[in-house]
Amino acid sequence: MNLDFHVKPEIRILGIDDSALLNEKVMIVGTIFRGGEWIDGVLRSEITRDGLDATEVITTMIKNSRHYGQLRIIMLDGITYGGFNVIDIQELYGETGLPVIVVMRSYPDFEKIRSALRHFSDGEKRWDIIKKAGEIEKIVTGKNETPIYIQKAGIGAKNVEKIIRLTSIRSSIPEPLRVAHLIATGIILGESKGKA
Amino acid sequence: MNLDFHVKPEIRILGIDDSALLNEKVMIVGTIFRGGEWIDGVLRSEITRDGLDATEVITTMIKNSRHYGQLRIIMLDGITYGGFNVIDIQELYGETGLPVIVVMRSYPDFEKIRSALRHFSDGEKRWDIIKKAGEIEKIVTGKNETPIYIQKAGIGAKNVEKIIRLTSIRSSIPEPLRVAHLIATGIILGESKGKA
Repeated sequence: MNLDFHVKPEIRILGIDDSALLNEKVMIVGTIFRGGEWIDGVLRSEITRDGLDATEVITTMIKNSRHYGQLRIIMLDGITYGGFNVIDIQELYGETGLPVIVVMRSYPDFEKIRSALRHFSDGEKRWDIIKKAGEIEKIVTGKNETPIYIQKAGIGAKNVEKIIRLTSIRSSIPEPLRVAHLIATGIILGESKGKA
Repeated sequence: MNLDFHVKPEIRILGIDDSALLNEKVMIVGTIFRGGEWIDGVLRSEITRDGLDATEVITTMIKNSRHYGQLRIIMLDGITYGGFNVIDIQELYGETGLPVIVVMRSYPDFEKIRSALRHFSDGEKRWDIIKKAGEIEKIVTGKNETPIYIQKAGIGAKNVEKIIRLTSIRSSIPEPLRVAHLIATGIILGESKGKA
């Protein structure tokens, strides 16, 4: 894979968010966008709260989708979903063949995360997955010049910036993640809550 | 209410669709759009399959929403939701103060509907609600010049056409309904199915 492949304005992007931790199973929602403009599809699956199945569930959800052949990028809202169900972005990239961009609103508090992971018998394994996600970079491209933080797998820094700029047209958060968040909160709580 | 009020490009519209009839309770999804461009919120509620609670459930969902003060239009995908749970659009308009536009992909088969309603002890009451929804007009405004059929309450024909044209930018179906459909099918079935 060429890390600096050509980014078309209508590049198909899957943005994934999770919902509130109300039950043992946590709903995850995927939105398929054409660039930042147009939602083309919605996916839904379930991961285990504080489990370690998120990478596999997301891989399966993507591979089973009729949009799989058109998808070019996966966007995640951080790498811990459904509590501390950490996503291995290198494995997700390897299994799906799709580059991964992780978007965070703030720099993660690793000390707090590491401390929480001490309560898990497999806390070291989870910590290794978090470390494997690589360097965190700060970028400023979205609306209002609000900085966001990113990690990446299978894609170069230039293309990450291009894609973030292409899709962050309504807020500092790329549309596929902003809308996945609206859907996940709206469906579970009855009305969406915006952080974007 | 002036039936030909001014239509702003970012007019807030609530589009409502229902999901597959898998259970006694059927999920309905509302999307709040700014014009045809930008999704601003997601609502979710439940109606009873073949019940007669859709008008009341939708009224409550709207009045409880933090978006209520900004909303200007309700868009429905036909007037029978969750089987034969018919929506009284005059009552919905009266209770919420929001004009209603009903969008249909094809002209309804009233003979078939009336025949199905004979199996309901309150079939006549449901039939009256359907008749009350008024005249069906054919309009051609969306992409590909595909005709759609509409009914309306609290809004004039000119404004209906303006709003359909403003919002039918990706298909012949207005965006609030197209996206509500993607969400409702995606969440219930795991992957959205497009009819638009």
